[in-house]
Amino acid sequence: MKKVVKFGGSSLASAEQFQKVGDIIRADESRRYVIPSAPGKRFTDDIKVTDMLYECYQAAAEKRKEFKNLLRCIQERYQEIIDGLGLSLSLEEEFSVIEQSFKNGAGEQYAASRGEFLNGKIMAAYLGYEFIDAAEVIIFDENGSFEADRTDEILSARLENVKTAVIPGFYGATEDGVVHTFSRGGSDVTGSIVAKAIKADLYENWTDVSGFLVADPRIIKDPQVIETITYRELRELSYMGATVLHEDAIFPVRKEGIPINIRNTNEPEDKGTFIVESTCRKPKYTITGVAGKKGFCSIYIEKSMMNAEIGFGRKVLQVFEEQGISFEHVPSGIDTMTVFVHQSEFEEKEQQVIAGIHRAVQPDVVEMESDLALVAVVGRGMRATRGTAGRIFSALAHANINVKMIDQGSSELNIIIGVKDSDFETAIKAIYDIFIMTQI
Amino acid sequence: MKKVVKFGGSSLASAEQFQKVGDIIRADESRRYVIPSAPGKRFTDDIKVTDMLYECYQAAAEKRKEFKNLLRCIQERYQEIIDGLGLSLSLEEEFSVIEQSFKNGAGEQYAASRGEFLNGKIMAAYLGYEFIDAAEVIIFDENGSFEADRTDEILSARLENVKTAVIPGFYGATEDGVVHTFSRGGSDVTGSIVAKAIKADLYENWTDVSGFLVADPRIIKDPQVIETITYRELRELSYMGATVLHEDAIFPVRKEGIPINIRNTNEPEDKGTFIVESTCRKPKYTITGVAGKKGFCSIYIEKSMMNAEIGFGRKVLQVFEEQGISFEHVPSGIDTMTVFVHQSEFEEKEQQVIAGIHRAVQPDVVEMESDLALVAVVGRGMRATRGTAGRIFSALAHANINVKMIDQGSSELNIIIGVKDSDFETAIKAIYDIFIMTQI
Repeated sequence: MKKVVKFGGSSLASAEQFQKVGDIIRADESRRYVIPSAPGKRFTDDIKVTDMLYECYQAAAEKRKEFKNLLRCIQERYQEIIDGLGLSLSLEEEFSVIEQSFKNGAGEQYAASRGEFLNGKIMAAYLGYEFIDAAEVIIFDENGSFEADRTDEILSARLENVKTAVIPGFYGATEDGVVHTFSRGGSDVTGSIVAKAIKADLYENWTDVSGFLVADPRIIKDPQVIETITYRELRELSYMGATVLHEDAIFPVRKEGIPINIRNTNEPEDKGTFIVESTCRKPKYTITGVAGKKGFCSIYIEKSMMNAEIGFGRKVLQVFEEQGISFEHVPSGIDTMTVFVHQSEFEEKEQQVIAGIHRAVQPDVVEMESDLALVAVVGRGMRATRGTAGRIFSALAHANINVKMIDQGSSELNIIIGVKDSDFETAIKAIYDIFIMTQI
Repeated sequence: MKKVVKFGGSSLASAEQFQKVGDIIRADESRRYVIPSAPGKRFTDDIKVTDMLYECYQAAAEKRKEFKNLLRCIQERYQEIIDGLGLSLSLEEEFSVIEQSFKNGAGEQYAASRGEFLNGKIMAAYLGYEFIDAAEVIIFDENGSFEADRTDEILSARLENVKTAVIPGFYGATEDGVVHTFSRGGSDVTGSIVAKAIKADLYENWTDVSGFLVADPRIIKDPQVIETITYRELRELSYMGATVLHEDAIFPVRKEGIPINIRNTNEPEDKGTFIVESTCRKPKYTITGVAGKKGFCSIYIEKSMMNAEIGFGRKVLQVFEEQGISFEHVPSGIDTMTVFVHQSEFEEKEQQVIAGIHRAVQPDVVEMESDLALVAVVGRGMRATRGTAGRIFSALAHANINVKMIDQGSSELNIIIGVKDSDFETAIKAIYDIFIMTQI
């Protein structure tokens, strides 16, 4: 049994948190490969070490005096953890290398990566695990793109005879040693890559929540935790703005059929959420989750006899493609089609797109509406339960929400609903209430 | 005030019906331009004159003896009307021209057109209106395509100083005199073209039903009549299989903003259905109508990270386009899209399309489902009424219908629902009941 365990920043923000993590790891000897994040916030207004590193590197780049002070603050932060854990570890050497590298302009990504690097050093010392620098095993190409196959090769070879190890998350390097990072939250990705490389039985992702939530806690107070979610459902919910796990973290383990278990460092008894390829376990509620995003706009196109014109839809979509705009949904009626796009992508190219549509298909009417939100109601249970759509739309009607778009394809795994931005939170609440609150 | 009045075949099947038509026309002197169809069925198993003409022409073309007998039967049919009306009109000359033309191979379209031509002769004599041969004023090009602009020019000039006239429906001719017909039911089109040319105030279309029905009477017993429907709504319902009016009949009058009034020759007191460009009249029910078609299939495509791939949707649609297949709907989820097409168009090209999709976008999964029906719930009243979608889907759930697809664009004028072919009638019934029966 081999598990990869990744701990988020808040799980490693202080010595106290480190001890919780240590207890968790020691409680199960299959927890052999540990992926730490950089120390997160200890309290609400605290600063994450990664942010301190960015600020410090900025000061170094601008040759501002406070650079040294800022670096010392970071070192103190780590020292506090070391002291709190009663370790004899010294990071003097590491910090002098970092100071020199910052002065030499090693780059922002290098700077940012030191948070995980140093935390990994402490974690390895604390656990008595081998420290493996991610720069040696997580490979990027010269353009800063992650090289999946090469990494898999190097990483699996490197770990083959290593029983236990700490590999810092978030970063890697080119084979020439230039450090690159994943996007923010990228330690999740590292954990997933390591799990894939060693063909782990489970990838545990320890955070500060007891799993993946049915709805955004900023909108719903104390939402229910999802017990089991499929990769597909998760991908749909995360695409729609639900967060816990970095989106790119899904693909490496999914390919290998390795389940992910989202756990809470502060509540290690909670079972958290299992993310699996597929399951015949009946979901607790009809819906697995509801999520959404604001900031869409719709371009409505009307043309008499459009439906008789082969290639109409393709020509319209090509106009968007030529402007580099990806579309989200294309609901269509008779002689009408609507294209939903991200407002931010669309806004500056609006006039080119409209002109392009006129040239391409000579529409009778083109109308735009902005400030729209999309809500995705996702759940494998919806397939088996008749009346889901009826419940959703009745609930939205009772909440006085105007439904701007409905899109349900034959996956029967989700229904996507367009509403006004201003109705977004109300819509999420209405859907959560009808499926979860009425059933609790 | 100028009205164009068109009468369908059943309104002109016998002398008795002709008398009803005569009463209707004489009751309103603005009914100045009359478009007759060919005589339709007098009783259930009767044969329409147009079908008799096709059969007769076939016999002539194959030089079969019964040709003369068949032609005589047709002539008797007209003579019965002439006698019943007490007219002194003789069609001997017309029939000898027809006999000669049939022998000379004048063509099937010419043959079919004689039903309206002859009925027009009788109608003109009966009303004392001028007879204008459609072959002189409804213009087709050499390929048999209707020439809208040329027709408008000739027709409006020809009718400028004609107070009252009968113009047979269904056919026209090239400027060289070769007769062409519209597709079956094309008298509706003629009426619409005439109404446009003379800028009529109203185009009355007299049939054997008291207007456009909320649902198909073959599915719903005695469905309600729609009082007012917009061209848009009508186009949507007729596209989806609802029939009363020939589809091409809408466009000429729509361009001019001329309302159409569907009326019942047998119930002339009924107000029928007004088809208008737009109206602020509140509809009687939330939905204006419900209609649908069977015989669709869906092609479901799944690919990880599809949503991040600009051009994905366009490439898929291009595959269909290259095979000459038009798509009906493209509902999409996250990383999934489904293409709904007509089964009849798709079936023989199925394998080419699937291969094309694989080449174009390397999908993870492609699945097909056939024998699907699409149901369109249409109504301008849906815009103003919240909860329409909820009522629809609750009703479908109560009727145990699995919803395969939902598509609602921002027109808010319709919701299109995919169900199994076998659930089609039940779905229409459920929707009719929830919106109409519960409100009566």
